[in-house]
Amino acid sequence: MLISNLMDILGTAAFAISGALAAFQKRLDIFGVLIITFATAIGGGTIRDVIIGNTPVSWMKDQQTISVIFGSYLLSLFFRKQLQYFPRKLAIFDAIGLGFATIVGVQKGLQVQLSPSICVALGMITGCFGGVLRDVILNEIPLVFRADIYASASLLGGALYVICLHIPLPPDTASTLAVATVVGIRLAAMQFKWNLPEV
Amino acid sequence: MLISNLMDILGTAAFAISGALAAFQKRLDIFGVLIITFATAIGGGTIRDVIIGNTPVSWMKDQQTISVIFGSYLLSLFFRKQLQYFPRKLAIFDAIGLGFATIVGVQKGLQVQLSPSICVALGMITGCFGGVLRDVILNEIPLVFRADIYASASLLGGALYVICLHIPLPPDTASTLAVATVVGIRLAAMQFKWNLPEV
Amino acid sequence: MLISNLMDILGTAAFAISGALAAFQKRLDIFGVLIITFATAIGGGTIRDVIIGNTPVSWMKDQQTISVIFGSYLLSLFFRKQLQYFPRKLAIFDAIGLGFATIVGVQKGLQVQLSPSICVALGMITGCFGGVLRDVILNEIPLVFRADIYASASLLGGALYVICLHIPLPPDTASTLAVATVVGIRLAAMQFKWNLPEV
Repeated sequence: MLISNLMDILGTAAFAISGALAAFQKRLDIFGVLIITFATAIGGGTIRDVIIGNTPVSWMKDQQTISVIFGSYLLSLFFRKQLQYFPRKLAIFDAIGLGFATIVGVQKGLQVQLSPSICVALGMITGCFGGVLRDVILNEIPLVFRADIYASASLLGGALYVICLHIPLPPDTASTLAVATVVGIRLAAMQFKWNLPEV
Repeated sequence: MLISNLMDILGTAAFAISGALAAFQKRLDIFGVLIITFATAIGGGTIRDVIIGNTPVSWMKDQQTISVIFGSYLLSLFFRKQLQYFPRKLAIFDAIGLGFATIVGVQKGLQVQLSPSICVALGMITGCFGGVLRDVILNEIPLVFRADIYASASLLGGALYVICLHIPLPPDTASTLAVATVVGIRLAAMQFKWNLPEV
Repeated sequence: MLISNLMDILGTAAFAISGALAAFQKRLDIFGVLIITFATAIGGGTIRDVIIGNTPVSWMKDQQTISVIFGSYLLSLFFRKQLQYFPRKLAIFDAIGLGFATIVGVQKGLQVQLSPSICVALGMITGCFGGVLRDVILNEIPLVFRADIYASASLLGGALYVICLHIPLPPDTASTLAVATVVGIRLAAMQFKWNLPEV
């Protein structure tokens, strides 16, 4: 539980920092950066909660998420220059964030009795749409639609999770396997420059 | 019922294909095209369901919509080149999609006892905001705000539907008349190059 | 009550007019301008209602808001040229709108028992996200993230409101003080060209 919570915090923080780093490129004021940081970190979960009707949305009922994001924002501001020197470590956090967000998204869908394929889609929305929101607000075509394997890793991990629960494996085993799959595929895709074909 | 369902499928498919065609222009990977295809086809209904509180939103409870969109996506990918040669036939499907989406939107509003003018607005949101979402994600000013008569056709058809129900005409007659009006105005606008004045 | 309602109308109208003025720059047709006008005026409240689960969202249940926005739209169209000559008066209305929207947003959050800091965030979302939506649809990086003190004024006013209620001051005193604070900070920021630092 402690480790799971720690990973969750790391995931949220990584998403937040990726938002702050993107905002730094755009000459926003410090408040604009704060909003982009929040939108990136909570965007996916917010869209998920809104379309399944889980309102007020999760971050409104949870002081920890807010604190983690705000802390990440302050860290990003103060260590702005240093952050540029370890993009790879950030990418590892981001992959962990993607893995956890995906599984949480699938779980929320299962809780409201949605069909398995919809739950997998919901996992992907949770994992990816914070980044989509960040890019749309910053007036870019979303990176996730152009970058190497990202949303696909989320879909595969989500599908694996649903299959594992169906076997059934114990929930903890299923989620560990699924998170590891998302993180593994994502990191391998970056390492070996896997890409989906362009059309 | 069979015909209405067939038309519904054609409408969804046409919206999906228009999304895929727009995404092809943007050098996305095959997954990015898939997301744009979905966003275009279900965006309007999703926004409608979210603002009236009909959650989980419709497509999450309905396997047919998902299957139709996914099929349209595959068709668009495989017949990409051929699709360019019949833009007019696509536009006819798209007009039919607009007609059906509009009336479905108005009906959903009436079901939750919203006032007639709000229901007409809801019909327009259902018909047009998938395209708005598509264009916003693809970093374009929404076509629907610039193109020839489109949203206006939806508003007129929605208003006619509400009036017909108020007379009262039988619901089936009302919806047939209204869909025909939307499709007719839309196609006439394209044929005769009607435009709203720019400001 | 009469004065509060009058101010509410002025606030909504100012938001609507600012939307119309932004849309005029983009060569949209008259319908596109109408949609941008609506999105600017009701966007913040819509996002607020959706994330707290207050659906159907407020403007769907309230004929006055719709009428005020539509009237503002017509005024903007007819007096388009003249509006350019008094941007400062418009900015005063807009600041009043920001003040009222902020306090209404905080109140809605308190009604559903959200924590004080979340309520302050909700006030800011209500006040600012109509403008964010306007800019995202018009394909601009949101002004609110770049301009002089705007969202910050909303946050300060919202925080003051929560503190005043906690003392406790009477609700009317608290909201009057808070609205005055938002408007005062916003106008002072424009007058003296206060800006948050860029990063």
